[in-house]
Amino acid sequence: VPLAAGIDVGGTKMLGVVIDTESPGDVLRQHRVATARGTDAVVTGLVEVARALGLDEGTTLGLGIPGLVDDNDVLRMGPNLPDVVDAPIGRLVASALGLGHVPVDNDATCAALAEFRGGAGIGVDDGILVALGTGIGAGIISGGRIMHGVHGFAGEPGHMLVDPNGPMCPCGRRGCWERFASGSGLGRLAREWAEAGRLGAVVAAAGGDPDDVKGEHVTEAARAGDRESGEVLDRFAWWIAVGLANLVNILDPHTIVLGGGVIGAADLIVDRVVAQLDGLVLGSGRRPTVPVVAASMGEHAGAVGAALLGAHLD
Amino acid sequence: VPLAAGIDVGGTKMLGVVIDTESPGDVLRQHRVATARGTDAVVTGLVEVARALGLDEGTTLGLGIPGLVDDNDVLRMGPNLPDVVDAPIGRLVASALGLGHVPVDNDATCAALAEFRGGAGIGVDDGILVALGTGIGAGIISGGRIMHGVHGFAGEPGHMLVDPNGPMCPCGRRGCWERFASGSGLGRLAREWAEAGRLGAVVAAAGGDPDDVKGEHVTEAARAGDRESGEVLDRFAWWIAVGLANLVNILDPHTIVLGGGVIGAADLIVDRVVAQLDGLVLGSGRRPTVPVVAASMGEHAGAVGAALLGAHLD
Repeated sequence: VPLAAGIDVGGTKMLGVVIDTESPGDVLRQHRVATARGTDAVVTGLVEVARALGLDEGTTLGLGIPGLVDDNDVLRMGPNLPDVVDAPIGRLVASALGLGHVPVDNDATCAALAEFRGGAGIGVDDGILVALGTGIGAGIISGGRIMHGVHGFAGEPGHMLVDPNGPMCPCGRRGCWERFASGSGLGRLAREWAEAGRLGAVVAAAGGDPDDVKGEHVTEAARAGDRESGEVLDRFAWWIAVGLANLVNILDPHTIVLGGGVIGAADLIVDRVVAQLDGLVLGSGRRPTVPVVAASMGEHAGAVGAALLGAHLD
Repeated sequence: VPLAAGIDVGGTKMLGVVIDTESPGDVLRQHRVATARGTDAVVTGLVEVARALGLDEGTTLGLGIPGLVDDNDVLRMGPNLPDVVDAPIGRLVASALGLGHVPVDNDATCAALAEFRGGAGIGVDDGILVALGTGIGAGIISGGRIMHGVHGFAGEPGHMLVDPNGPMCPCGRRGCWERFASGSGLGRLAREWAEAGRLGAVVAAAGGDPDDVKGEHVTEAARAGDRESGEVLDRFAWWIAVGLANLVNILDPHTIVLGGGVIGAADLIVDRVVAQLDGLVLGSGRRPTVPVVAASMGEHAGAVGAALLGAHLD
């Protein structure tokens, strides 16, 4: 059985898995370490995870990294890895482990590969995975293949401008979609409502100070039946739908898979997005509704996709 | 020599051409008629143009239509053809002319085919044509092929939301990119500035009433050296760059070709767009700048691309 290892580098942790490529949804082994700062420390951590996974002879390795990864497997920049710039991570890890080639791609692109090959989008040849976490990552599958773009940088809708008067983004621009539709966006939206005197139940749950309101307080209160929390989630889901509609207008995908930490609350989010998406798409009513489904691989998706990438199953 | 005919249906006129497919930039014959309302009248007009072009035995025909054209060559809807809905235009025209098959695609998609096969984007396999006219159309070429999306509806960035507080769009939604970055968008922006007491030279040229200011007044005044007109064009070009940057973040193309009526003022627009695009793209400075060039086929691009489509050279 061909085994494949993959490691997903996050802003706070690195998660490695070993899978059987014929059954990518089943994780055979896993290991995680905290993400340290700087190229050398990241490489050291990756080598540690790879060794802990116990790579046998013939086991391939691939890496998913949160940032712009070019066609030569070089990480050009990643907003959540500020001290790692123009880093040939794949080559450094391959060299340290004595492996021939360690392919690298964007972490959300890896997650898209995993979900469309063995997860919620299985069987779909033209789909988009959108990972709603602290920021927004995405991967586009077109004709069964990852769409990389000419330089390897395709699939960053999180930084499309959706509001010229919106808040500043860590990327240096204003009004990026991820300021509104990520986990951070939900927290910001809730604090705005709280500071305007709404969301009393949520503010109470947060200890009384509107500044301390977080997204989790909203989802908990909504589950407990708080009406205003449901309204915040309606607005949050509208922002998610805005960006998805932009993607549908541009790419016309078969299916959209939503992943990332926010989708831990899939029961509160997905139906609200579906209810608002159609009305934001050009020609709705005269074209099929695009199915929007929750990812099924959870936090493993990026590492599983990296393993598929390493095994050249991309 | 294989000849091919193509007809581009616009909101006001239909333009037909005959080309030699080996030299698509050279238009051998052309004919135009006004666009009438309703499916029957549009089909009658298309048949008139085709007959006037004098299709010889073996000459193929293709059509470009401004709207959502599905995989079965049915026009689902077009904002500028309000009385033509769910119309099997290709089949109706083929039947009237006794032709076997008349392929149909979106007009801007046809223009993209023409510009990337024989115009300003020749030799580029991954590019986007954005046609800035009354609205905004677009066509995406990926790996040398038109990107149609799953249902045929890809390539409508004109209706991506870029401002939740923006003006209403004829499509029924608010804040679409084409409200800001089309020819209509330039006129609206200029009237806003004029009503705020700016653009004195432009208002004078328009006869004294800010409500009568049009985009052409601004471009004429800018050419004559009016400083404020240059500033309006800077802002207009920023809006163009916003949408292009969104497309670059999502698709990572090699080259963008700008066409449409607005690009009649390419000398005033393109450099201003180029100057502002890079700063709006994620990771600028760590990735190549995307070349933005003016289309070279002018008003013929859609019809030439329709001819290529008809000859199955898409």
